[in-house]
Amino acid sequence: MLPTTPESLLPLVLRAMQATPDARLRDLLSGLVTHLHDFVREHQVTEPEFERAVAFLVGIGQATGPTKNEVILASDLLGISTLVALQNNPAGEAGTESHAALLGPFWRAEAPECQLGDNIARAGTPGTPLEVRGTVHGAEGQALAGAVVDVWQASPVGLYENQDPSQPDMNLRGQFRTDAAGRYHFRSVRPAGYPVPTDGPCGELLRAQRRQPCRPAHLHFMVSSPGHKVLVTQVFADDSEHLQSDPVFGVTAALVGHFRLAEEDGRPLALLDHDFHLVRGEPVFPHPPIP
Amino acid sequence: MLPTTPESLLPLVLRAMQATPDARLRDLLSGLVTHLHDFVREHQVTEPEFERAVAFLVGIGQATGPTKNEVILASDLLGISTLVALQNNPAGEAGTESHAALLGPFWRAEAPECQLGDNIARAGTPGTPLEVRGTVHGAEGQALAGAVVDVWQASPVGLYENQDPSQPDMNLRGQFRTDAAGRYHFRSVRPAGYPVPTDGPCGELLRAQRRQPCRPAHLHFMVSSPGHKVLVTQVFADDSEHLQSDPVFGVTAALVGHFRLAEEDGRPLALLDHDFHLVRGEPVFPHPPIP
Repeated sequence: MLPTTPESLLPLVLRAMQATPDARLRDLLSGLVTHLHDFVREHQVTEPEFERAVAFLVGIGQATGPTKNEVILASDLLGISTLVALQNNPAGEAGTESHAALLGPFWRAEAPECQLGDNIARAGTPGTPLEVRGTVHGAEGQALAGAVVDVWQASPVGLYENQDPSQPDMNLRGQFRTDAAGRYHFRSVRPAGYPVPTDGPCGELLRAQRRQPCRPAHLHFMVSSPGHKVLVTQVFADDSEHLQSDPVFGVTAALVGHFRLAEEDGRPLALLDHDFHLVRGEPVFPHPPIP
Repeated sequence: MLPTTPESLLPLVLRAMQATPDARLRDLLSGLVTHLHDFVREHQVTEPEFERAVAFLVGIGQATGPTKNEVILASDLLGISTLVALQNNPAGEAGTESHAALLGPFWRAEAPECQLGDNIARAGTPGTPLEVRGTVHGAEGQALAGAVVDVWQASPVGLYENQDPSQPDMNLRGQFRTDAAGRYHFRSVRPAGYPVPTDGPCGELLRAQRRQPCRPAHLHFMVSSPGHKVLVTQVFADDSEHLQSDPVFGVTAALVGHFRLAEEDGRPLALLDHDFHLVRGEPVFPHPPIP
């Protein structure tokens, strides 16, 4: 059987994949191929458009390196990453809305292990001081002692330390362990929003779509405790611009944190109270985004 | 409006893309995003599966280089490349079945300009001698004088010269111009079938799917003449293995050529007669597959 028309090709491709021993892989690839063929036929994709798509895919793979993962970014910009996060962390599992969010391209494994109360902003980091505190809850709502709270954030100029030679290594990153009451607290500075990287193919895509590239200000967290699923989440500043136009669709109602303004020794201090709710599951950590 | 469920996300992504000034780009991306979201929801793609897909995309981008384009290869293995070729070169346009086929990852721009009758197999290339000849026809069936026939092929051991340090540069490649009667002819050696590259992520995919990697033996052609669409095509040997199981779905009935065995000075000589039919259109050349 040789294909003669566009419609006659899909059944042949599906048949060629039928011998896949892993049933899940067979289903996933059959479904993906069906959707991709339907898309190409429905929209009558032309040869130059196909070549452009190939060049985009080559471009995002080759733009991925030690400081960014442009493939994840592309997936973020199409809402795929948030979709995967939402559907695998459904609302209500822990009596709350989903608190899961994108890992993003800037996480680094092995951030410094800190003591509760430590400041993750190394000396010389500018910005408004910030105190973050809260409790990590388990599947039954109990406080989880010894849970690991891994935090990373951009500086007040909107750059992560691994994007910014002027910051010390591992600045604005740290791992904390909750105390016997499941509580954590640490010091930092208020993060700023920042544009997603726009120097690669994804930046070109955003410009072609006339979309603004700035994310609202946020902190990233990865929270883990034995017997619970690793929670990857972000907390967005409620007074931040672009809450409604995050280019990576990372903001859900449950992820907006209330930043209060207090005073300490006559100087402004921002306060953020934020609790985490873990669900039962295997503690599978994400791979570092960069291979 | 912030997303709360997987289903609530797609409309927000589509809305974010609505300002795209290029209507075709807007339609294509809206259609693609809709299919991808549908796929992720229908199959309940998990977080580890998503990470695996990201790693695959990074891998095929980074495996692309001077000797292969693994993104095109991935698209070939899913039947997308052939689908695009089929639907943009419909049967019957020139009173024939579609003769268009994949460009493939091994084409090189600026192959040597040859005289009719030249042998593109440089001295020392082993294999059965082959004589290829035919006529290039235009949109009305007329013979096209001065049409360019660009040919490239693998050696009898199944390697293109740019994969094989033992072959001279540009071996088994050449560009010919048809004579006043629209005819071309040249000498070469019979190509062998060969496996698609299996040392990268695409090889892993084929193994996971238990698909055999060998293409049937074929010659590649790119045929061009002013006022006509550039024809990218392949001619497959009718006595070749794997005609029915080409891993890249490149074989259509119209692309199977009849190889006859003759004799010349007491030695075997393979003969291939093959005509090309161009259709009216802009003579747009593909970009070299490697950026």
